[in-house]
Amino acid sequence: MYSFLCDYSEGAHPRILESLVKTNLNQTDGYGIDSYCENACSLLKKEIGIDTVDIHFFVGGTQTNTTAISAFLRPHEAVISPKTGHIQVHETGAIEATGHKILTFPTIDGKLTPLEISQALFEHEDEHMAKPKLVYISNATEIGSIYTMSELESLHDICIKNHLFLFMDGARLGSALTAKGNDLTLNKIATLVDAFYIGGTKNGALLGEALVICNDALKADFRYHMKQKGALLAKGRLIGIQFEELFRDKLYFQLAKHSNNMATKIADGFAHYGYTFLTDSLTNQVFPILPNKIIEALESHFSFYRWLKIDDNNWAIRLVTSWATSEREVNELLDLLDKLHNTL
Amino acid sequence: MYSFLCDYSEGAHPRILESLVKTNLNQTDGYGIDSYCENACSLLKKEIGIDTVDIHFFVGGTQTNTTAISAFLRPHEAVISPKTGHIQVHETGAIEATGHKILTFPTIDGKLTPLEISQALFEHEDEHMAKPKLVYISNATEIGSIYTMSELESLHDICIKNHLFLFMDGARLGSALTAKGNDLTLNKIATLVDAFYIGGTKNGALLGEALVICNDALKADFRYHMKQKGALLAKGRLIGIQFEELFRDKLYFQLAKHSNNMATKIADGFAHYGYTFLTDSLTNQVFPILPNKIIEALESHFSFYRWLKIDDNNWAIRLVTSWATSEREVNELLDLLDKLHNTL
Amino acid sequence: MYSFLCDYSEGAHPRILESLVKTNLNQTDGYGIDSYCENACSLLKKEIGIDTVDIHFFVGGTQTNTTAISAFLRPHEAVISPKTGHIQVHETGAIEATGHKILTFPTIDGKLTPLEISQALFEHEDEHMAKPKLVYISNATEIGSIYTMSELESLHDICIKNHLFLFMDGARLGSALTAKGNDLTLNKIATLVDAFYIGGTKNGALLGEALVICNDALKADFRYHMKQKGALLAKGRLIGIQFEELFRDKLYFQLAKHSNNMATKIADGFAHYGYTFLTDSLTNQVFPILPNKIIEALESHFSFYRWLKIDDNNWAIRLVTSWATSEREVNELLDLLDKLHNTL
Amino acid sequence: MYSFLCDYSEGAHPRILESLVKTNLNQTDGYGIDSYCENACSLLKKEIGIDTVDIHFFVGGTQTNTTAISAFLRPHEAVISPKTGHIQVHETGAIEATGHKILTFPTIDGKLTPLEISQALFEHEDEHMAKPKLVYISNATEIGSIYTMSELESLHDICIKNHLFLFMDGARLGSALTAKGNDLTLNKIATLVDAFYIGGTKNGALLGEALVICNDALKADFRYHMKQKGALLAKGRLIGIQFEELFRDKLYFQLAKHSNNMATKIADGFAHYGYTFLTDSLTNQVFPILPNKIIEALESHFSFYRWLKIDDNNWAIRLVTSWATSEREVNELLDLLDKLHNTL
Repeated sequence: MYSFLCDYSEGAHPRILESLVKTNLNQTDGYGIDSYCENACSLLKKEIGIDTVDIHFFVGGTQTNTTAISAFLRPHEAVISPKTGHIQVHETGAIEATGHKILTFPTIDGKLTPLEISQALFEHEDEHMAKPKLVYISNATEIGSIYTMSELESLHDICIKNHLFLFMDGARLGSALTAKGNDLTLNKIATLVDAFYIGGTKNGALLGEALVICNDALKADFRYHMKQKGALLAKGRLIGIQFEELFRDKLYFQLAKHSNNMATKIADGFAHYGYTFLTDSLTNQVFPILPNKIIEALESHFSFYRWLKIDDNNWAIRLVTSWATSEREVNELLDLLDKLHNTL
Repeated sequence: MYSFLCDYSEGAHPRILESLVKTNLNQTDGYGIDSYCENACSLLKKEIGIDTVDIHFFVGGTQTNTTAISAFLRPHEAVISPKTGHIQVHETGAIEATGHKILTFPTIDGKLTPLEISQALFEHEDEHMAKPKLVYISNATEIGSIYTMSELESLHDICIKNHLFLFMDGARLGSALTAKGNDLTLNKIATLVDAFYIGGTKNGALLGEALVICNDALKADFRYHMKQKGALLAKGRLIGIQFEELFRDKLYFQLAKHSNNMATKIADGFAHYGYTFLTDSLTNQVFPILPNKIIEALESHFSFYRWLKIDDNNWAIRLVTSWATSEREVNELLDLLDKLHNTL
Repeated sequence: MYSFLCDYSEGAHPRILESLVKTNLNQTDGYGIDSYCENACSLLKKEIGIDTVDIHFFVGGTQTNTTAISAFLRPHEAVISPKTGHIQVHETGAIEATGHKILTFPTIDGKLTPLEISQALFEHEDEHMAKPKLVYISNATEIGSIYTMSELESLHDICIKNHLFLFMDGARLGSALTAKGNDLTLNKIATLVDAFYIGGTKNGALLGEALVICNDALKADFRYHMKQKGALLAKGRLIGIQFEELFRDKLYFQLAKHSNNMATKIADGFAHYGYTFLTDSLTNQVFPILPNKIIEALESHFSFYRWLKIDDNNWAIRLVTSWATSEREVNELLDLLDKLHNTL
Repeated sequence: MYSFLCDYSEGAHPRILESLVKTNLNQTDGYGIDSYCENACSLLKKEIGIDTVDIHFFVGGTQTNTTAISAFLRPHEAVISPKTGHIQVHETGAIEATGHKILTFPTIDGKLTPLEISQALFEHEDEHMAKPKLVYISNATEIGSIYTMSELESLHDICIKNHLFLFMDGARLGSALTAKGNDLTLNKIATLVDAFYIGGTKNGALLGEALVICNDALKADFRYHMKQKGALLAKGRLIGIQFEELFRDKLYFQLAKHSNNMATKIADGFAHYGYTFLTDSLTNQVFPILPNKIIEALESHFSFYRWLKIDDNNWAIRLVTSWATSEREVNELLDLLDKLHNTL
């Protein structure tokens, strides 16, 4: 049964495996101090267009978020996050486990605005309350939306004005940067946030996230924090080799674009029959609202999550595409939908 | 220049890469809930000979130690460790970062005995002091020695009697279990300790440690702790596939045995010229004490660590072998030593 | 200018100071192991009517909450709290600083119901989310409301059924237990919650809260947690002597009753002129909604907090009474109100 | 039975209690923002002779150490401490519970020297190890010795040179500053350390330590850390009033001097009979080494700790004096000793 459950159902893009095989017996130093990691950093800096950023590799998103945020904050400082933020919902209290409160705000589309940040600052006025210090956003968000340049600029402005750090979770950054309507670039992001990461795991790597620290004040001693959190891999080359391959020639963006295209094709297919969507996702997650009967019929051929119960007769489901989703499976899904419509 | 710096200088055993390539496009669920991980667990349980242990996969030793120890202890409880223990020396205070004190004791050979445990219990008598609760040992130790069955039994006994957990760091467990003089087995270890891990990273894997929880009282909710520490890999299959390959047919032990053999050959080579050693290592680390002149000459052809200054004219160096060390490089090292002896 | 800002504006009830003076030169052991603390515990157990509870003394509410909650929970476990809970709003992230997430729910009157607890359990389903384990309530709540026996029983039932701990913050427990409409007793509370504390600081003591641990499973090693959190006072007698005095002869309840009476008198005074209230407080906090003009006039003679802006012309203010509030000051406040009404 | 167990066996100096009684009904704001605390700060600053230090009041030593040290350090930074340091031995892992490793070094007399600091820096060279950042010393030390000005200057110099903070635990600072041989002053200390505290609990207060932050870089947001650790007392005046009294007219130093005098008298008494001492204490702790027979006879009339077993026939005991120790009890002790010598 084909799965649209997530964007990490398969292994890695074949070029990555080839590169691992090819370099396998070359000896390197450990813990990310090797030529592959160095070259990957160079490629990333070139892509970002800023030579002075610091880049560190991690095995996954929770580890990246936790290590970075706990390194950036002092004990009394808190994070501002959308209520749907991954650190708030799906990381088992990892940020709190490092001692920091998360202040959450409901949003319509998973995106923070200066309004919620102002509110957080207004409500937290003295030493009897945690002190807001870091704004956490995801791009793409957990529900598939993306930040525009002007939105990110307005967040940047209010953060600068209030001495807040701005941190972008980029687990699905590839998908965001290749989405319809996107006007951000890695370069622009690097000028607007204090740190962000470029997600590899959900875009063709076996595992790997590249944290980019833009703010000089946050760079010192960062590898100490990584080691303490178990984030320095003995064979650090494993991630370096992968990012080398992903950024040698735009493969990263091609994979993300493909993934978005497949999602758009699915969305268009559902829209064709008049279905509406929980959110207007422009990236690789699609949330159609369907009658239970349709869902049940789809479930016997495809795996996906029921996301939110709309009413007794309808649910929103989540379909996720990836670099590995082929047009064939998308066609089969849409063919099934078509067949269901002709018969139900 | 060939490196004897560590046992994680290369990638993975070729069979592991082949398996990754072969399974690459098979879809699986994420976070270690997949058929590869399940099969790896079955193989490990069979090798251990106890079906009721719980097994969890991690990317590295620091992450394993930190997640397990912090999950097992309540906030006021402390760890007893040799002064040379990896958690004490080389993990950037990771255990303390989860809130727990480490009580350390000097040892001659890196191994704890009931004596130090008794001392820890005697010295920590009331609520003004942290409460000793978990005994941390490494096998092989950080300086290459190994625990015998009777030594481990005596640690087990004092721990049982005093309600202490016994935890074995097995980053180099393969090397220990295939060393000359070893009389322990995975099965025996599993009956004597509360939890231990089987290190893959230093024995042929790209990355991966298999934590084995033997004590029922420590099993509940363990995956919560893993997720909170960033230790649940989205593509958890990556580690499952590797342990499948390592334990399908004793490859794990063959690799470790090879590594030990290469180390023994090196040790014998140095002993032949009358050199002594910092410690009697039976595993894959050798610590010959050499005149500076010899060391300098070796350094121009091989990489290794200067470990401890003995006096103005002599240092102990550390040479580490691995699954990937070939007899050819060992011979070249010994040939160079021979040549130096004929000319100096 | 007389202050209705809080219930800790003065020192201690005179009998407490007399007792401190009288016992001053008697030598005792330190850290709460003294005859005064023992006697205070006996008096409290007698008042509670259960001899098997454990009692520990703390200097303040934040310290009590933090020590108890962090001692009761394992690292992955979370607290369920009303959005207005003191631990959520006014303790600078102290609970999170010990590693635990707080899951908050909006309430109308500051009180949790089984509904929010069910929701928390429903939403937190697997190891990717923190695990709800302890329910935090305050009685009286932060906005002056109190729990009835049937409300507390229903919380108890859902907690028992779902293996949750129920913890009551009793910073203003005296006020709750002597409020109009209260049908709870110390004894009844002790049978329904796992732990609670009896607040002294806000009811006549210089400082001091008595934590009562009812659940046997939470008792072991508790003094270790206290010491680690800096909560074992060298001169622990200081709190023992105070609770001895407060519970020797019901002084504790007399002081709280007085405080409530003064608040009721104030509330009646404002109601007389038709003012409404932000919440129906039955305890020692009153929240009248007043025109700005009235507020400004009151502010030139009395101190109090502006609590919530209602609209451009009106605010809710907070007036707090205490054991030390005399009828004279209350009369002066009401006289001023009367005068303002005759002149404005 | 009279107790020489510790210096916190009694309540407070009578003048303190008088002041509490006298000010009892004056209303103040809470949490240390009141005229008593302000005045106490002024008096302390005057005594220190530096107007720009920040002063914060705490209820006890463990709370002061924990709050200050965790506020000063980033997560990967460690403390250097003598092996006998209070934070290492007698605070139940409180520092580690805030996430920081303590690096300990054996000393002869409880005092660190630049040698141990150099060693700590030498041994901790990269990100695989915790980073030494703060040097913790106690004055007087836990075994009664004191730092001289030149010793403190040499610690200051090495700390400045290596960007380390120097922190002095002053639980018994009064005793140190009035000891024979002392050449330090509050002013001198404030110029040489980054922060220190002036202990009240062990020198006449009911409870109270005054933390003095000298380094500007450590001052920001400090009250947030206090609140988070439960260290902001609602009735903060309680400590302010006590320090006002202690520093209004040198009472603090008079009490400490008296305590030292009593200890010296005891030491001279034991020395008279030829007994030796475990350490040369110049402060209020005396450690005579006595035959078991003498100890048993003393134990039937006085309370004190057996400190260290010397051999089968002899123990070192610890006798502690305080502001409240009267010459009468000291004479009784020495008379008993005399009697024992005449009869045994």
